Amino acid sequence: MNYSNLSLHTDKYQINMMYAHWVLGSLNKKAVFEAYFRKLPFGNGYAVFAGLERIVHYIQHLAFDDEAIDYLRQQEEAYQEGFLEELRRFRFTGCIRAVPEGTLVFPNVPIIRVEARIFEAQLIETAILNFMNYQTLIATKASRIKQVAPHDTLLEFGTRRAQEADAAVWGARAAYIAGFHATSNLRAGMLFGIPTKGTHAHAWIQAHDTEEEAFAKFAEALPDQVSLLVDTYDTLKSGVPNAIKTAKLLEAKGKRLQSIRLDSGDLALISKEARALLDQAGFPYVKIIASNDLDESLIMNLKAQGARIDVWGVGTQLITAADQPSLGGIYKLVAKEKDGDYEPVIKISGNPEKVSNPGVKETYRLLNRQTGRAEADYIALGSEREPREGAPLLLFDPATPYRSKTLEAYDGVRLLQDIYVNGELAYALPGVEAIRAYHESQLALFRPEIRRMLNPEEYRVTLSRKAWDLKMELIHEYHP
Amino acid sequence: MNYSNLSLHTDKYQINMMYAHWVLGSLNKKAVFEAYFRKLPFGNGYAVFAGLERIVHYIQHLAFDDEAIDYLRQQEEAYQEGFLEELRRFRFTGCIRAVPEGTLVFPNVPIIRVEARIFEAQLIETAILNFMNYQTLIATKASRIKQVAPHDTLLEFGTRRAQEADAAVWGARAAYIAGFHATSNLRAGMLFGIPTKGTHAHAWIQAHDTEEEAFAKFAEALPDQVSLLVDTYDTLKSGVPNAIKTAKLLEAKGKRLQSIRLDSGDLALISKEARALLDQAGFPYVKIIASNDLDESLIMNLKAQGARIDVWGVGTQLITAADQPSLGGIYKLVAKEKDGDYEPVIKISGNPEKVSNPGVKETYRLLNRQTGRAEADYIALGSEREPREGAPLLLFDPATPYRSKTLEAYDGVRLLQDIYVNGELAYALPGVEAIRAYHESQLALFRPEIRRMLNPEEYRVTLSRKAWDLKMELIHEYHP
Repeated sequence: MNYSNLSLHTDKYQINMMYAHWVLGSLNKKAVFEAYFRKLPFGNGYAVFAGLERIVHYIQHLAFDDEAIDYLRQQEEAYQEGFLEELRRFRFTGCIRAVPEGTLVFPNVPIIRVEARIFEAQLIETAILNFMNYQTLIATKASRIKQVAPHDTLLEFGTRRAQEADAAVWGARAAYIAGFHATSNLRAGMLFGIPTKGTHAHAWIQAHDTEEEAFAKFAEALPDQVSLLVDTYDTLKSGVPNAIKTAKLLEAKGKRLQSIRLDSGDLALISKEARALLDQAGFPYVKIIASNDLDESLIMNLKAQGARIDVWGVGTQLITAADQPSLGGIYKLVAKEKDGDYEPVIKISGNPEKVSNPGVKETYRLLNRQTGRAEADYIALGSEREPREGAPLLLFDPATPYRSKTLEAYDGVRLLQDIYVNGELAYALPGVEAIRAYHESQLALFRPEIRRMLNPEEYRVTLSRKAWDLKMELIHEYHP
Repeated sequence: MNYSNLSLHTDKYQINMMYAHWVLGSLNKKAVFEAYFRKLPFGNGYAVFAGLERIVHYIQHLAFDDEAIDYLRQQEEAYQEGFLEELRRFRFTGCIRAVPEGTLVFPNVPIIRVEARIFEAQLIETAILNFMNYQTLIATKASRIKQVAPHDTLLEFGTRRAQEADAAVWGARAAYIAGFHATSNLRAGMLFGIPTKGTHAHAWIQAHDTEEEAFAKFAEALPDQVSLLVDTYDTLKSGVPNAIKTAKLLEAKGKRLQSIRLDSGDLALISKEARALLDQAGFPYVKIIASNDLDESLIMNLKAQGARIDVWGVGTQLITAADQPSLGGIYKLVAKEKDGDYEPVIKISGNPEKVSNPGVKETYRLLNRQTGRAEADYIALGSEREPREGAPLLLFDPATPYRSKTLEAYDGVRLLQDIYVNGELAYALPGVEAIRAYHESQLALFRPEIRRMLNPEEYRVTLSRKAWDLKMELIHEYHP
């Protein structure tokens, strides 16, 4: 597909609402939307935000070209020409605040806040959610895998099973941010500066008359990057012994076989026997790579069985987030301009967890001054100064009041940073290495109980008393 | 992302194998690869092939530009400059045969066959699988949804939860091929000529002081496209009564309210009560749209409960194929050039279903001359003439020999069509309407028992006796 303009990467209802605002003359009214999710994916204790770089690229290039305008002109809505002219002049002129990529984020905490003319804020909803939902999902999945194999090498191998081309590259990037070491996808490598790794396929073996010849030839061609796939015929009887022959050939040239790759069978058992064969033959330095539908549960299980695997090639389960392939991120109107000021708005729902938090808000991560650990995220109205100034805070828990407590010695770190200010980019996008390092520093702020993969402790997210009172007030207004 | 060149949309190991072939001088040897899958997704009785248009675009534009070459030059493999020069001259010069999009396909049946220099055939594996796997998966999911609501209107609403931007548009197209009626994604609409539909969001209601005002304003702006979301505050007490007021306003202008949309709550109950309210008020023509995490099971369940829903807006579950977010399509070497001829090759595995079918093959769909129905797919070696000429065929089933039978009065339709012949495009890509119609005609060939959503009958896929004997012969050669 050669049409890279993303102005139409949106739902038609956004354009219809923009049109209705234009017809009615309300297009320039300011509005504030917040993007967040309600539920952590995979039963994890946290999510890892990713997607901001993509959002910034999108906003930077957001303009309707002739092709898009012509297409809109043909719609059954029969939009007036004046509206199409307005679109032709469209530029993003609003403000966006967001948490940096790599930040640990939690349910109901605003991750992105858009303050703009409603005409603009409405258009960008779909793309923002699409980018944030997928990349945050994959970064979180990768982080779970990293948790169970913190000292091993992790390779992203998912392109052939990714949900199309964009998913492959942005998923590879999300995995790298969360601590993976390399990807097999060369386009991702080029676009983002991620290290790339590759071995060879079964087809390499099949293209030669014997496995031994295939290995020897590969070692001849790429003597410094030899990783041999040993399961084409019989891993322990044929693959590993032939790999050992190749390792000897390489040693004779002063080179080293890097690794062997197992891609089928009982990885626990085979890796141990392969390790023994390699060690006996005098090749303790040859590493063992495993692939074959791996995920965090399988890796943890293999490690518990004492599998001798040094490098994990993770594909399908990571790149599609197979056990939960979507994050339910949403984008809700929280305030609208009225008589020159912002009026908070709410969305009611039969499901209590779906009632939105009204008002323009600021989120603080409260760091305990003694331990340095994050105690809670605190969501306050923008006008509240207490968390910024370090005043004692009541962490109020309306569902379980006995959990309420007052925090005193803390630092309140504001999570949302300026990305766009009045349409101007106000943020220097960090490179992936910096994001990866930042993510590691973020992880270190949280207790292990919150970080663990299975049944993590629930991290505390609290609405300020004022934000809570405002919510109650609006609920009563709509449901007296 | 503005880098649309897909030459690096591949795994690094493909480049490494290409390099090794180049170093060793075997790059020009011809090879034949077949792409297929081993297992149907979702427990469905068939899959719907999609992805060919994307593959053709990819092959048409496949060329390494300076940026890609420069990037490859920096790799740790330290590729020789001669290899990079070879890549700079790279053009696809081989042959590709494939089934048309919209064809019903089954396990182990070659869907795409690539015959090319191994140097070329290796490069394109990753992209072919990425495109085929995702689009076939979504077309199949959409087809299941279509099966349970064959007479209703189906709208694809998934962009915000799709796995990035490409998935949104190609998924929308796959859903349309399989019988959906429209998408909310405007870019998909523009790129492929798919109809687009949209209503409005909760934010439209929240942006006004009252729901009644919000509805009236929307009707004022878009009087011919009024579909009202009625669940922002209380569907039956507030939403539907306000929608009825708007319907009256519209009638007074000689217009009609098109529909209301339900997006939460008990859709079975609420749709029945909303229908009654609309009918009582004299608006039997106003349709009811439902959305909210729908899939084929939920739709079937709602219909069984007598829900009065005319239009289904399906998002997350469809666009991510949530219950099985990947199709395990593979690309296997089946023959290699040797002494000027093709030698069949096999991949052995501990798992019997993973042993590949060797040799260059042709697949026939055997249509019963009396009923017109498809009896079986028959995979024969390219040299076999019987199925082409209508000679009696033994449908041999080695696992359950009593199921073997001989077919006499049939037509053998070749499934694979020429797409590329010696590097030249030999296929006129049909538009989506033609593909959609072809898909319908394909479905009609199969008995309802094969098409049903739950516990379908297994369609017969048979290897010819000669192809079977060849497979046995090679297995014995590698495992004597």
